[in-house]
Amino acid sequence: MRYGFLGPETTFTHQALLQAFEGPTPVADPAEVTMVPFSSVATATTDLLAGDIDALMAPIENSVEGGVSGTLDVLAATDSITIVAEQVVLISFVLAAREPIALEELTTISSHPHAQAQVQGWLRTHVPAARVATSSSTAAAARDLAEAAPEQARGRAAVCSRLAAEHFGLEILADGIEDTAGAQTRFVLVTREGRIPARTGADKTTIVVQLPHNRSGALLEALEMLSANGVNMSRIESRPIGDFLGRYSFSIDLEGHLEDRRVAAALRSLHRMCPVVHYLGSYPRVDGERTEVREDFADETYDEAHEWLERLSGMIAAPRG
Amino acid sequence: MRYGFLGPETTFTHQALLQAFEGPTPVADPAEVTMVPFSSVATATTDLLAGDIDALMAPIENSVEGGVSGTLDVLAATDSITIVAEQVVLISFVLAAREPIALEELTTISSHPHAQAQVQGWLRTHVPAARVATSSSTAAAARDLAEAAPEQARGRAAVCSRLAAEHFGLEILADGIEDTAGAQTRFVLVTREGRIPARTGADKTTIVVQLPHNRSGALLEALEMLSANGVNMSRIESRPIGDFLGRYSFSIDLEGHLEDRRVAAALRSLHRMCPVVHYLGSYPRVDGERTEVREDFADETYDEAHEWLERLSGMIAAPRG
Amino acid sequence: MRYGFLGPETTFTHQALLQAFEGPTPVADPAEVTMVPFSSVATATTDLLAGDIDALMAPIENSVEGGVSGTLDVLAATDSITIVAEQVVLISFVLAAREPIALEELTTISSHPHAQAQVQGWLRTHVPAARVATSSSTAAAARDLAEAAPEQARGRAAVCSRLAAEHFGLEILADGIEDTAGAQTRFVLVTREGRIPARTGADKTTIVVQLPHNRSGALLEALEMLSANGVNMSRIESRPIGDFLGRYSFSIDLEGHLEDRRVAAALRSLHRMCPVVHYLGSYPRVDGERTEVREDFADETYDEAHEWLERLSGMIAAPRG
Amino acid sequence: MRYGFLGPETTFTHQALLQAFEGPTPVADPAEVTMVPFSSVATATTDLLAGDIDALMAPIENSVEGGVSGTLDVLAATDSITIVAEQVVLISFVLAAREPIALEELTTISSHPHAQAQVQGWLRTHVPAARVATSSSTAAAARDLAEAAPEQARGRAAVCSRLAAEHFGLEILADGIEDTAGAQTRFVLVTREGRIPARTGADKTTIVVQLPHNRSGALLEALEMLSANGVNMSRIESRPIGDFLGRYSFSIDLEGHLEDRRVAAALRSLHRMCPVVHYLGSYPRVDGERTEVREDFADETYDEAHEWLERLSGMIAAPRG
Repeated sequence: MRYGFLGPETTFTHQALLQAFEGPTPVADPAEVTMVPFSSVATATTDLLAGDIDALMAPIENSVEGGVSGTLDVLAATDSITIVAEQVVLISFVLAAREPIALEELTTISSHPHAQAQVQGWLRTHVPAARVATSSSTAAAARDLAEAAPEQARGRAAVCSRLAAEHFGLEILADGIEDTAGAQTRFVLVTREGRIPARTGADKTTIVVQLPHNRSGALLEALEMLSANGVNMSRIESRPIGDFLGRYSFSIDLEGHLEDRRVAAALRSLHRMCPVVHYLGSYPRVDGERTEVREDFADETYDEAHEWLERLSGMIAAPRG
Repeated sequence: MRYGFLGPETTFTHQALLQAFEGPTPVADPAEVTMVPFSSVATATTDLLAGDIDALMAPIENSVEGGVSGTLDVLAATDSITIVAEQVVLISFVLAAREPIALEELTTISSHPHAQAQVQGWLRTHVPAARVATSSSTAAAARDLAEAAPEQARGRAAVCSRLAAEHFGLEILADGIEDTAGAQTRFVLVTREGRIPARTGADKTTIVVQLPHNRSGALLEALEMLSANGVNMSRIESRPIGDFLGRYSFSIDLEGHLEDRRVAAALRSLHRMCPVVHYLGSYPRVDGERTEVREDFADETYDEAHEWLERLSGMIAAPRG
Repeated sequence: MRYGFLGPETTFTHQALLQAFEGPTPVADPAEVTMVPFSSVATATTDLLAGDIDALMAPIENSVEGGVSGTLDVLAATDSITIVAEQVVLISFVLAAREPIALEELTTISSHPHAQAQVQGWLRTHVPAARVATSSSTAAAARDLAEAAPEQARGRAAVCSRLAAEHFGLEILADGIEDTAGAQTRFVLVTREGRIPARTGADKTTIVVQLPHNRSGALLEALEMLSANGVNMSRIESRPIGDFLGRYSFSIDLEGHLEDRRVAAALRSLHRMCPVVHYLGSYPRVDGERTEVREDFADETYDEAHEWLERLSGMIAAPRG
Repeated sequence: MRYGFLGPETTFTHQALLQAFEGPTPVADPAEVTMVPFSSVATATTDLLAGDIDALMAPIENSVEGGVSGTLDVLAATDSITIVAEQVVLISFVLAAREPIALEELTTISSHPHAQAQVQGWLRTHVPAARVATSSSTAAAARDLAEAAPEQARGRAAVCSRLAAEHFGLEILADGIEDTAGAQTRFVLVTREGRIPARTGADKTTIVVQLPHNRSGALLEALEMLSANGVNMSRIESRPIGDFLGRYSFSIDLEGHLEDRRVAAALRSLHRMCPVVHYLGSYPRVDGERTEVREDFADETYDEAHEWLERLSGMIAAPRG
């Protein structure tokens, strides 16, 4: 099997994919998987749909930046891919060099602009004199430093992930240098549509809905559909539909699995009221937290109500004439 | 077939039963029905459950007095009877005598206390000198007058329905003598459980619900279940459950039929949240007014949502192991 | 001061009035009050409005029978009376005679039909041979027995309240003879409009509302107004408005006092949406149970929001021109 | 007065600012305003807060890309700026050259990457052979072409706004070359806090709210606060708060003005339930569309309810003791 990820090797997406092979519910046996780096979610998705890869790990939201538009829009645009797993990676950076060196001897720090933005306070304080150089990714910064000629590596360091530093054999000069600790990115593993992972009891369901435009209060109505079935949201992101100002779709994570009667009932209600409900998958929560369900939202309660109504319906007379 | 009614003959309940054999959807061919008067709803219900009669007409609510507790409580107490039709009767009274007579010559007016209360203003104005005598029903007042010896009937009149006056061959001295015009009583025809009349498109459904007592806002939640399925209430009456102050059941009429997907969905939701949902029947509205249904509450919309979810559910993998 | 009650002396309403002079928040010093029995709520109300009495105790709901229509309708019909207190009386009956006597020697049991209905099982079991005689009230049954000539009192007993038996010096043969234990009646003490009792922290507020008739879902909307301000209902009773079938007003008890910001806010919202909101009073709960209020419904939270908005409003420019 | 905009001159933001001086409610007399270009919203905001400029025009949302994070985050981060006006600009591009030239003779097309993305289909079809060169903005592409030496300008064209082409005296070769017609960007004019424009009857109010995190359903509750006061949303955008995954603030546009009682009431309710409600301004809608308000949400209705409650509150007795 071939699994794609947003590369190059040692990116945070790569790290998310490596994590997905561990833990209580690994997505596959890593021995049977070839990991394939891609330069963008769009190109990887094309390959996924073409059958060149079997799955793809992509970032979906970041605790600082919010939703990852590229992934959200790709997920919304096709009916043929399904989320089968999620991973969360703590976004932390190290400063790494070819060999041990005092910070004040550093002349050049290379990294990706995104990472630089997250460590600029630390750099200003600890290596104020060093020049900042741009690389195409933090992984590339680490790799280039590792592969540079010794005289070119002198006085240089890279801002990258611990995984990258270790992978390319660099020396870690400082750890956890990000200005805001605790930033996290959430990733999803998607496959071509086909199989929804069975319910584990600690699951999430991801959907994209477009609300009806001809009446106000439609978002309120949609949330009431969830509430009426005891279904909580753990994420809601608005995305423009693209035709007019003020028209949005909403990308939503629900707590629970399609197999849960309450989730199924909520989805049916949304399907009735919304012009578009795009089901993207139900999959195990990475935190393993089981959803507590009030008795009136339990499967048995839905089943009993269903059976009661079936019995009543059996008593309806055939229409006259 | 034997149909019971709250008697004696020519009561408003009798009139409701006669009406039920007419109109676009008669409940039965009157030629095949024997009408049986009863002195109370309770005794008639006992006979209905015992199979001695096949159906029973009983008052359920009055536009002035409100719900008829006797009928509401009998309906709530048994699972074995079903409402199959409703009738509405305009409550209007006449003053009737054995033969034409001037009002000022009347010495005694007889009627039932309930009726007297509704005509007392008229009597005070038009026959201030007459004594008011009590009879066990307005029908009895008319019958007794009709059957009295001529000398005993002199100077006497009865407050009764037009039906009673005509049935017993009395002369109508004044018509529409009720103080408040337009009072109406609604009646229901109940049978032993068995067959629910088929949907006509202009239907009502009657239920009794007990709400959960362990949380506030339960009535709000119940009404949201109706609203979420586009189901309107045309009547709601609170009745004490009888154990503690502040504990009620609610007798509710919904617009629509059990066959309507939206009504069925609302009932299932109520069944989930309520300790008791007692289904009393779906039957044609006597006013024949069809319920307008927004597109997201149409049968097809429910069916499409159901099929969509069935397709998705077919993609769930078998549980591991 | 003169306080009326539904008489005669020793009725449950009398007992409710006596209770109102006791406990942590007595309504008045009993030494300064003359208690005046009335034969109906309507006549007592007339005297109250005329200034002949200063207050009136009347039953408002019973745990078995539901709302007391007479009182509810009188309260709804006038703007000039205010509820200032409530009492709850446990409805329990004794069997009492002039002197000790074995049950099998009793030949006649007298009482009010309403009371008879509540003890008929006990009577059938314990005094199956005795004849049941009707009196105009349980208090009258006790009084008549106490005042009867000795030979007429022989073999006779009365079904009445313990208060009546003790008041008239009767011997209690059996206690708690009601078939359903625990029935309660709730009473309210009303005065001519004027002063609303200050907040105690454990209060109730009683209102009557008429909902707008031109749109469905109005009851749901009204309950949302309460819920949006964290206000619970402890009682809701529907009463017909009297003009057409299906038009109701609702008599409602709210937990809290007009002085509570959340109650005031809820009442303002109801006043906006409803053609009629009739405020009947705020008064201490007889059970003394304090209402727990979530932080976002506390007085301070309302006050802070109010001040914040006042500050903002101070920044609005004068209109152009 | 000095008004800043996201420059350089002839950007769409510049165009929005020019528009703001026209129409029925111009923001200022253009003769009294100096327009100052800035390279970023952040630097312009710093100058605004420092008093170097008096107002700032910035993009807030785009019908294709969604919310403009830079502006949204700057607006959320400070209490000291107020939105006083909005503008909408139709995003349309022209192909412009120094002098008339056949499309097939073009060798180089310069523009900003963002604009290129929106016209790439057109370019591929109509000038497939030309090389695409990157400039720092579409305005810069036009200016550089206008200022180039004649021999350097040969065979070159710029993708830019009509405003830019006209401003720099270029020849328009093709108009409306964007692949998706109708894209719009909405801009807001902000000032240092101080004065909120008076109500016009066709207004918008912008807020940022953080919901309570300790209970589910908080977004539903917040929307109910709006609905309970008849207030519609015309925009809702989620933005991460930045501390943990799954924690959002919401940037919301409401229909109406702070002076509208219903808007003020909704804001007070949000202030009660939300840890943060950031009021960003009330200002005339650029489309001039007046909000239709149901009677129970009219100012008079709020005022009447307020007065009614004040009258009642005047009757509350002073606390005992």
